[in-house]
Amino acid sequence: MKTVTIVGLGLIGGSFALALKKVGNFEKIIGVDGSLQHCKEALELGIVDTLGELKESVLQSDLVVLAIPINAIQRILPQILDYIPAKTIVMDMGSTKEGICKLVKNHPNRKNFVATHPIAGTENSGPKAAYPELYLNKVAIICDAEDSSIQAVKKIQKIYQSLWMNVISMTSNAHDQHIAYVSHLSHITSFALGQTVLEEEANEKAIFDMAGSGFESTVRLAKSSPAMWTPIFLQNRENLLIAIDAYQAQLGKLRRMIDQKDEQGIEKYLTETNTIRRILKK
Amino acid sequence: MKTVTIVGLGLIGGSFALALKKVGNFEKIIGVDGSLQHCKEALELGIVDTLGELKESVLQSDLVVLAIPINAIQRILPQILDYIPAKTIVMDMGSTKEGICKLVKNHPNRKNFVATHPIAGTENSGPKAAYPELYLNKVAIICDAEDSSIQAVKKIQKIYQSLWMNVISMTSNAHDQHIAYVSHLSHITSFALGQTVLEEEANEKAIFDMAGSGFESTVRLAKSSPAMWTPIFLQNRENLLIAIDAYQAQLGKLRRMIDQKDEQGIEKYLTETNTIRRILKK
Repeated sequence: MKTVTIVGLGLIGGSFALALKKVGNFEKIIGVDGSLQHCKEALELGIVDTLGELKESVLQSDLVVLAIPINAIQRILPQILDYIPAKTIVMDMGSTKEGICKLVKNHPNRKNFVATHPIAGTENSGPKAAYPELYLNKVAIICDAEDSSIQAVKKIQKIYQSLWMNVISMTSNAHDQHIAYVSHLSHITSFALGQTVLEEEANEKAIFDMAGSGFESTVRLAKSSPAMWTPIFLQNRENLLIAIDAYQAQLGKLRRMIDQKDEQGIEKYLTETNTIRRILKK
Repeated sequence: MKTVTIVGLGLIGGSFALALKKVGNFEKIIGVDGSLQHCKEALELGIVDTLGELKESVLQSDLVVLAIPINAIQRILPQILDYIPAKTIVMDMGSTKEGICKLVKNHPNRKNFVATHPIAGTENSGPKAAYPELYLNKVAIICDAEDSSIQAVKKIQKIYQSLWMNVISMTSNAHDQHIAYVSHLSHITSFALGQTVLEEEANEKAIFDMAGSGFESTVRLAKSSPAMWTPIFLQNRENLLIAIDAYQAQLGKLRRMIDQKDEQGIEKYLTETNTIRRILKK
């Protein structure tokens, strides 16, 4: 594989380009982005070697990486598959997988497409937020691999492994269901917390002087990009509503015990939740 | 001031002791802790110079620091004030302030007491979690300062400033109301999120492989100590219930927009919440 086109030069695509450059997987990295500002920055920061138009770039590439909001992926992936060269692989890096996989399920060139989700990101966005270590030691999920050609899946696995990523496989359906809990729900709770405290700030300007590192950690994701997250919430709407309902039930349970001064109940609840330590890395 | 007694040798008291040692404010640091294990560790880690019983330690100290759960502070503070030497100051570091201040409001030695809350902490606990930089550049709040002697308040201010802390003043009532939003509520949302995902794990063992740094950040506080946080939730029950209700309303609003596929509404909500950037340091 000699040439790769990265579509979307923000945090996700930019970091992927920088990582590929570091590892030396490709001879040439072409950048495609609708924002002139992003294109300029990506060139200046050395994220890509050159810029191009979508179709001409796809036609000269061995790999095309879609690192754009998922509604944009759904818009351009079918077009790309219409004119993709036989030897070219297209992969996406979107945070929901079922809608995208359903959309191209019966496309004659479906085998050229690999649906992936690297579990990595920060609350920042744009080319300036990109850094080559973003994916290091993280998990990458490949979905509905049986619909892709075996060679294409193997190549994408190798690329992710070259970034020291741990590659796992699952159906797009299972992916969307589980990711609702461990990613999308965290963003929902962060946004709601941020909004709650911003509203309270109207009553007390000094409130943020009182905020410590705990609050910062819990509300960090509320800085995430609306352009990226609005389509994710809508795409994964059904799974997310179930996850939010489960969360609201847990929140309601804790609230009820506080209301009823149920000291033993609260202590038991917190102690049980502490077991989350075993599954968090740090 | 030559001698200080630290009551409670966990993360909060242990870190305070290490910081005081670093700055060289006191000649002798005495440790008091009900846990033999904590006493042993604190000595081994060089957190304190010596160990003592509560009363004998108070009687020979210039400053007594209460760094224990707030229900324990309420239990022993009135006793300490009963026998405190005239020259000795006692300060607490608890996360709620109104109950404690009300409890000793009319004690004849109330002037010897300074009610404080340093806004610092991590999700870890015990002497091993203590480190001297915990308080560096953080905010310390002094409450109901007019009930303490002016000299006592000035001395505590100087000590916090020697740790590079920014000292602010407010009533214990205002403190508890605002801290419910920027600290206690964050802990509630973290515990509820942790519990939600732990329950979902029963259906899907692999779920934590899919968790990224965003989830870790949002759920970090769910590792916090139940012994410390149960009494805080109960002490600040009324303010916290109001904060939880405001949060539930925000969460419900976001959920409703997702349910109704209100793309513009969601994007507006997320964009507004993004303004939280301006008040978070990083």
